[in-house]
Amino acid sequence: MPTTEVVQEAVKVPSLRELGELGIIQIMEHTLGKSSRTVVGFGDDVSVVKLTKGKVAVLKTDMLVGSTDVPPGMTMRQLARKAVVANVSDLAAKGVRPLAGLVALGLPARLSRQDVQGIAAGLRDGANEYGFPLVGGDTNESNDLTISIALFAVADRRRVVLRSGAKPGDIVAVTGEFGSTSAGLMALLNKKWHPRRLPRPLYDAVYKPTAQLKLGLRLASSKAITASIDSSDGLAWSLHEISKASNVGILIDNVPISRTAREFATRFSCNAANFALYGGEEYHLVVTVKRDRFKAARQVSGGKLHPIGLVTGRFRGVRMKHAEEEVGIPRKGWEHFKK
Amino acid sequence: MPTTEVVQEAVKVPSLRELGELGIIQIMEHTLGKSSRTVVGFGDDVSVVKLTKGKVAVLKTDMLVGSTDVPPGMTMRQLARKAVVANVSDLAAKGVRPLAGLVALGLPARLSRQDVQGIAAGLRDGANEYGFPLVGGDTNESNDLTISIALFAVADRRRVVLRSGAKPGDIVAVTGEFGSTSAGLMALLNKKWHPRRLPRPLYDAVYKPTAQLKLGLRLASSKAITASIDSSDGLAWSLHEISKASNVGILIDNVPISRTAREFATRFSCNAANFALYGGEEYHLVVTVKRDRFKAARQVSGGKLHPIGLVTGRFRGVRMKHAEEEVGIPRKGWEHFKK
Repeated sequence: MPTTEVVQEAVKVPSLRELGELGIIQIMEHTLGKSSRTVVGFGDDVSVVKLTKGKVAVLKTDMLVGSTDVPPGMTMRQLARKAVVANVSDLAAKGVRPLAGLVALGLPARLSRQDVQGIAAGLRDGANEYGFPLVGGDTNESNDLTISIALFAVADRRRVVLRSGAKPGDIVAVTGEFGSTSAGLMALLNKKWHPRRLPRPLYDAVYKPTAQLKLGLRLASSKAITASIDSSDGLAWSLHEISKASNVGILIDNVPISRTAREFATRFSCNAANFALYGGEEYHLVVTVKRDRFKAARQVSGGKLHPIGLVTGRFRGVRMKHAEEEVGIPRKGWEHFKK
Repeated sequence: MPTTEVVQEAVKVPSLRELGELGIIQIMEHTLGKSSRTVVGFGDDVSVVKLTKGKVAVLKTDMLVGSTDVPPGMTMRQLARKAVVANVSDLAAKGVRPLAGLVALGLPARLSRQDVQGIAAGLRDGANEYGFPLVGGDTNESNDLTISIALFAVADRRRVVLRSGAKPGDIVAVTGEFGSTSAGLMALLNKKWHPRRLPRPLYDAVYKPTAQLKLGLRLASSKAITASIDSSDGLAWSLHEISKASNVGILIDNVPISRTAREFATRFSCNAANFALYGGEEYHLVVTVKRDRFKAARQVSGGKLHPIGLVTGRFRGVRMKHAEEEVGIPRKGWEHFKK
């Protein structure tokens, strides 16, 4: 009875796979509402809450889950450090320095003392690298390794660079080359290379990603940045987020792809542009810059700011110049529950 | 070969069961160290970080894990609310009002849309009950349902009541009667009653616990409290924590046990005092009070402050007066990984 089977199959699709991460966030946002104290709630890289006159608290939480977020071969120390990096990257995009952090752990009982020491060392690595203390936490038993970090900062309200400030005419720019993380992950997941044989730039991109905190702080100080987001959900996704939050269109003409990603793509007949546009877990900053301040911003960045396109009022969404055409870039990227 | 089997059994004991939650926390605390900005790090109910002159940030995170922390029969809405309560209770013990919170979720894909709506509603229930907004979060897929909440507050540095201020001569007091939660949990786990048949006070203690935020704020304002902790890991455990942090002894002569817990204990031939002393998940406050201000503190509490003993310099640890003897109360309570 194939018909019945098909129906049963359809019924068996787990609900959260249909709902998706965005659907879940919508339910949370809608149910929890917004208070008068909230300056920025759900929907940006961080949340922002009024403190005293002109000052705000900047709050961020990001959870790393063993069964879904950990590349094969990653050590406990690397993954705990990465959990810190993922949180810091969002503050970096907002131009805000973390003041202190908390870490809640869910640990499977099968872990060893060495595993716990590795996690502790990785947390310390991350906190030291970005210059803030992890001041407390909570420890629990769990069936799935979980590292949930919460960061806290205080900033001038006007300092925080949101996703929503992009204006037509602004230059769209990024702080690095894309594609290495995706190429590295593909090499690992498809077992093209053993982790130890992975070319160094791919290895570092996957196992030792870095957050652009210094760069983010400098750029925010330049007063040239109108919108900013980190690229952890993928470049295309990040551009769509700025487009949506700022109610503008983004036209890109150029995507900086790392040499190693290009070499990998050629060797294994993949599309390097896909790695660069739709891969996630890459912690660059994606910003829009006032046109007349771009040179100053680039100088402040030490030459690390690469223009990739323009903000426009002509359309909404994200397009790419290809020959003389403008091709729509789909809103694709990393989303939990969608597989 | 029974000998070999015994050896293999010994090797198979999972390491974290040997290490225990305290062992894990020690590794974290030792590895992460303490910064000059940290006023209170690991080892109290909350962490405290210097802000400006006289002002501190108070930070708290507590994670609820489905496989270990959820009583049978608890709805998604109840457990999400309880996750909020557990966090608020620690701030209540410090006399600090939460300003805002974040929630990181780890959700198994098999959950339904209704489950997610239940979680959202429970989070809202908790946040509304204690008057602060949940302003953001993170959503992940996980094999184990995880609700990790982080709370943030700002307070006068001198306002925060730590575990470490108890002085010989102070009165030890609690804000409620103990035992209902343990009796209720035992009834559920041993299937003595179906959740819906559970006597109301036991049902509420297990499924609808409340944090003593108003009471904690009032007591802190009374300037009568020298040390404070919440009783979520059990009364005996909490008393030991104050004893250790304050380097004093605690002699109790009386433990207020709820009538329902006593009735349950009689009916099922259990020891009600064990429920009251060693059960966890009960969110009362355990405080030490300056002797000459006890009356004022009791008045401020609306009569809810029950004296249970005295702080002494004669010994360290916790003892109970029994007839004319002083009996040692062991440091037992809820600890993850120890089963």
